[in-house]
Amino acid sequence: MKSLSVVGIGPGNELNLSILAKETLESSDLIVGYSKYVDLVKDYLPDKEYLDTGMTKEVDRCKLALEKASESKKVSVVCSGDAGVYGMAGLVYQLSVNYPGVEIDIVPGISAVLSGSAVLGAPIGHDFAVISLSDLLTPWELIEKRLKLAGDGDFCICLYNPSSHKRKDYLKKACELLLDYKSEDTICGYVRNIGRSGESYNILTLSELKDTEVDMFTTVFIGNSNTEIIDNKMVTPRGYKGL
Amino acid sequence: MKSLSVVGIGPGNELNLSILAKETLESSDLIVGYSKYVDLVKDYLPDKEYLDTGMTKEVDRCKLALEKASESKKVSVVCSGDAGVYGMAGLVYQLSVNYPGVEIDIVPGISAVLSGSAVLGAPIGHDFAVISLSDLLTPWELIEKRLKLAGDGDFCICLYNPSSHKRKDYLKKACELLLDYKSEDTICGYVRNIGRSGESYNILTLSELKDTEVDMFTTVFIGNSNTEIIDNKMVTPRGYKGL
Repeated sequence: MKSLSVVGIGPGNELNLSILAKETLESSDLIVGYSKYVDLVKDYLPDKEYLDTGMTKEVDRCKLALEKASESKKVSVVCSGDAGVYGMAGLVYQLSVNYPGVEIDIVPGISAVLSGSAVLGAPIGHDFAVISLSDLLTPWELIEKRLKLAGDGDFCICLYNPSSHKRKDYLKKACELLLDYKSEDTICGYVRNIGRSGESYNILTLSELKDTEVDMFTTVFIGNSNTEIIDNKMVTPRGYKGL
Repeated sequence: MKSLSVVGIGPGNELNLSILAKETLESSDLIVGYSKYVDLVKDYLPDKEYLDTGMTKEVDRCKLALEKASESKKVSVVCSGDAGVYGMAGLVYQLSVNYPGVEIDIVPGISAVLSGSAVLGAPIGHDFAVISLSDLLTPWELIEKRLKLAGDGDFCICLYNPSSHKRKDYLKKACELLLDYKSEDTICGYVRNIGRSGESYNILTLSELKDTEVDMFTTVFIGNSNTEIIDNKMVTPRGYKGL
């Protein structure tokens, strides 16, 4: 069987893995992934065969996985969160044209927009936009444009990759753009190390968020104009009447 | 213990449930939900105590769950997909102020934007917006505004509640608005009955989608300007070089 599963492993712990993801990993001959994510999986599946690659080696990693699958192995590529949200699913399909006969399937997982939301309460209870602040693969001008439009539409916004060593001021820049559309009192939140040891969260206003430094293990949420704080949680109402 | 868990059960089948969601439901004294979702859970947990309510009875359902939790029961409210994406999490927090002492926790689940994405391939491989076309709780003018802005930003778009008996032409209206910003050849897809019996999907252009009637059990995906069809799947590249 030449089969390659692209598996979203959720935030990291076994509890937030889907039953299908667990079964898929258990039945794989080989699990391929970025070393940090492979380590998370080894915690609950220590006896599998693994191949890990470094960060930013996504193309090599997916080619390696497709090659191994071509050798009639059942291979899984693991992605943090979901397989398709800034994950490897698209890249695997793009590369698969060179590996005919490999069956590909995608196993969804709980992406940070959902796992982080659960930690904060209910921040994305209405229409929302997910935007990555990483400009490694996307021009910053397009990221700016999307931030402005999402701000103008009063979307709830979830920011992936809000910071890195080289992009320490990107979250500040994003907040400054959003402040042209959203009130400085807009309720925001961020979660660090979702589902991993040291998980923490904070709820604050958009103007406070502007002056906050977060790291690359953080997911940021910006509320809409109706978002409120209830019992230390960030809650965006859907709009039900008669409460 | 006065505890209320708001549990996202994923698309419906047990396989796409998280391990935490399964454990939370198993350890509950009572499971409350819309009758259709309760029936899905009964399939794999037949021996629990259940209370179901009709559609559009969301406020009553959450009040009932909070009341039962106040009686020192461990209660779960089940939501299709995720607990916080058009789910009950926000409403439970809003109502909880009248039920002091009830501990609330949110168990995330695989929302249709992720489970549907996995069926289609990789449609949301870049920044995306999730918009509900239901105007029961949201003015249509705001939905229109968000569609236009998401179109202008070349976001991938996922539409929830694309149709109902009373809103048969809403998807058509949405596509017409998007055609002002997106090419008529934009790759789109839709998935019906995700993770349930009779699951099916279709991939088509935006102009074809405009003239397609879908039902309320369908989730719709509209690609960005880079979305392509690869081996009958809908794929939005992240932008990796050197393929």
